[in-house]
Amino acid sequence: MEKSIAEMRKDAVKIFNKGVYAVEPRRAVKKFCRRDRDYFYAGSRKFHLPSIKNLYVIGAGKGAAPMGAAIEELLSDFITEGIINVKYGHKTRLDKIKLVEAGHPLPDKNGEKGTKAIFELVKDAGDKDLVLFLVSGGGSALLPMPVNGITLKDKQDTIALLLKCGASIDEINAIRKHISNIKGGRLAKIVHPAPIVSIILSDVVGDDLEVIASGPTVPDSSTFFLCADIMAKYNIKDKLPPSVFQHIKNGLANKNMETPKADDPAFSQTSTLIIGNNMEAITAAKKEADDMGYNSIILSSMIEGETKDVARVHAAIAKEIHKTGNPLPPPACVLSGGETTVTIKGSGKGGRNQEFSLAAALDISGNDKIVLLSGGTDGNDGPTDAAGGIADNTTLIRARNLSLNPHDYLSNNDSYNFFQKLDDLLITGPTNTNVMDLRVMIVA
Amino acid sequence: MEKSIAEMRKDAVKIFNKGVYAVEPRRAVKKFCRRDRDYFYAGSRKFHLPSIKNLYVIGAGKGAAPMGAAIEELLSDFITEGIINVKYGHKTRLDKIKLVEAGHPLPDKNGEKGTKAIFELVKDAGDKDLVLFLVSGGGSALLPMPVNGITLKDKQDTIALLLKCGASIDEINAIRKHISNIKGGRLAKIVHPAPIVSIILSDVVGDDLEVIASGPTVPDSSTFFLCADIMAKYNIKDKLPPSVFQHIKNGLANKNMETPKADDPAFSQTSTLIIGNNMEAITAAKKEADDMGYNSIILSSMIEGETKDVARVHAAIAKEIHKTGNPLPPPACVLSGGETTVTIKGSGKGGRNQEFSLAAALDISGNDKIVLLSGGTDGNDGPTDAAGGIADNTTLIRARNLSLNPHDYLSNNDSYNFFQKLDDLLITGPTNTNVMDLRVMIVA
Repeated sequence: MEKSIAEMRKDAVKIFNKGVYAVEPRRAVKKFCRRDRDYFYAGSRKFHLPSIKNLYVIGAGKGAAPMGAAIEELLSDFITEGIINVKYGHKTRLDKIKLVEAGHPLPDKNGEKGTKAIFELVKDAGDKDLVLFLVSGGGSALLPMPVNGITLKDKQDTIALLLKCGASIDEINAIRKHISNIKGGRLAKIVHPAPIVSIILSDVVGDDLEVIASGPTVPDSSTFFLCADIMAKYNIKDKLPPSVFQHIKNGLANKNMETPKADDPAFSQTSTLIIGNNMEAITAAKKEADDMGYNSIILSSMIEGETKDVARVHAAIAKEIHKTGNPLPPPACVLSGGETTVTIKGSGKGGRNQEFSLAAALDISGNDKIVLLSGGTDGNDGPTDAAGGIADNTTLIRARNLSLNPHDYLSNNDSYNFFQKLDDLLITGPTNTNVMDLRVMIVA
Repeated sequence: MEKSIAEMRKDAVKIFNKGVYAVEPRRAVKKFCRRDRDYFYAGSRKFHLPSIKNLYVIGAGKGAAPMGAAIEELLSDFITEGIINVKYGHKTRLDKIKLVEAGHPLPDKNGEKGTKAIFELVKDAGDKDLVLFLVSGGGSALLPMPVNGITLKDKQDTIALLLKCGASIDEINAIRKHISNIKGGRLAKIVHPAPIVSIILSDVVGDDLEVIASGPTVPDSSTFFLCADIMAKYNIKDKLPPSVFQHIKNGLANKNMETPKADDPAFSQTSTLIIGNNMEAITAAKKEADDMGYNSIILSSMIEGETKDVARVHAAIAKEIHKTGNPLPPPACVLSGGETTVTIKGSGKGGRNQEFSLAAALDISGNDKIVLLSGGTDGNDGPTDAAGGIADNTTLIRARNLSLNPHDYLSNNDSYNFFQKLDDLLITGPTNTNVMDLRVMIVA
């Protein structure tokens, strides 16, 4: 296979697009849920539709509207009522299900209103009813419902305080769940005794169900005691909003306030169906690469860490493929996914995927043919209109011809402007899905 | 294969040791050089020993003494004279070759003296002579010989200034070569018309011959013009030692002062033999893993980047192996090498390999059986007596039982004390070799 850099770049984009296409919400729902006359199949579960008294569709997330559309196409005549919270501007035309536009990533009053409406809709559901809960990326911020006495502002101040203390994401989630009416398994309790099926498009590394939308329908492994430990560890008793401190104190004294645990009967009626995740996208991308004739491997769908260093590891693998044919011989396609972080030190414009490609470009320069594409599956990398960036072994030469210093752009976190000038941005437009990032590395 | 964590840890150590054993300098020399009565074979080159008038053995590096020993075993009766600069405490008993102990990583007067002696020994070599040049890690610092008028202190001030400006390693090397009598191909010119064979144990990512010991016997691709550009770029004209500034200025005006380039006749008589490198160690380690029954892959021998983030990528691959059998199914052994960096922010004790294992431990906790070993092939990780550290999926639980907070140890760069308390240090003692680091990851 003698491909030019231009052809390899086209292949990388095609492979990326196949990955995204595989997790398009509407198609993803229909891949795992189907209707056969009077029966509704959701994964391995089967429901006899005429036997259901009320069928409620609730949900939240950036891709939840098209998921709702797919459910309406399958079940419209049987849906009693539905409410889904979506991010502003993420509306779709729906028939039975009401969409509530709300704030993301910062929750707002509209989110609270929508969540309250969802709560009211399902709180009296009975064992003859069925609740379908559609969740995608952003589900946590779009389902705000702090417990009585705690305002949305109290909650946000609490999380800001914890972040400032250097609390881990697990610690933040423990507190978040313990001041919510919905999260940490509480939605399962509200809906009980009605069965609830959570249909999930996962944007979480490793698909941890306790983390996705803060786990409204799964048992919570954290406790009020842990929350108290966290308060003590960071010595924030006096800095927390009084309402939050008081609620945790009350929770320590009153067992009934604890989030539901694995032995709670509510969980006998819950089931979870992941209809799309990062690995689903990677697997589809791999199939495309294989069909194109590349040797391919999936490195991991769970890649985390500082973007520019993760990029260097990828570049090191590309160079090794050239030099010794390890871990696989060229023409090779290496795929990875997950979500990296960027420690922002500059004032430029960019996103983790564009920064990934820029950092990789520095290490692959001077090598023979290598193309490295990194893109967000939602089509939206950081605060830019690009999904990501595409680097290759000629990137640095082309940059030099335009008098661009890639080191300067990288240290200023200005990857967008770097790739824009080279015409190497990956632009897809909004994809209406989100299963984190997808990286395609081609070595010929 | 049902192995316990304890067995997997033992396997990881065995696999690491096999890798190191493969690049032991004495054995490495004998793998690539041999004597057959009157003939000496160095790689693909063949020399008729009785036809050689003078056979000089010169060299520098931490592992150069045992390399010298191997050469003496092969050629003793034919060696005319020899001088090798070694790090203090790295002496071996040699017969014909004189060892000069000198400073490393900071070059010192003894290093200068030894280098001067090497210069004198070979400067009049003729076309009937043969020079063997033995190089291993540390060769650059152990061969200091600044040009006339520039002192060792001037040279060190220059490099310190460049580091402070954020100059890249390529930029530093360009200047380093242009103020040296030995580096940047000058040794080849000194020795010319005698043939010179460089026998190299590489401690450089990608084995770049221009970088290993600053390339004394290979053409230099940098120029005095580049040096002037670098001075301008960082605006250090007035901050450089005057002797260095003047030398670069003179070099711009006088073509004869330039380092030798690829078309220089001196290079018609040079050849280079890499007798050991990181990939050599990894390949031997892989063979051991295969023999033990593991599925194995070599990720890359060229891994660079911030240690804790590189560790996270490795952990992500381990978790993926468990979850989906990608990039290869368990029981799996993933090998990688190269040399990562640590941005020191704390005041603890550790090295990049121990920090790697500590950072990885955080991400693999809670998983099923995973063992991650990272070690320096020289047996010496940072300023510690350990070669590295071994982490597994139980590391965090065992740390908790001892009330150790792994996050605190990591942010304090105190990986040595963390693993010492857990009895999880990898201790090998000095190995007398150095081909950077070797990481062994086992997932069962």
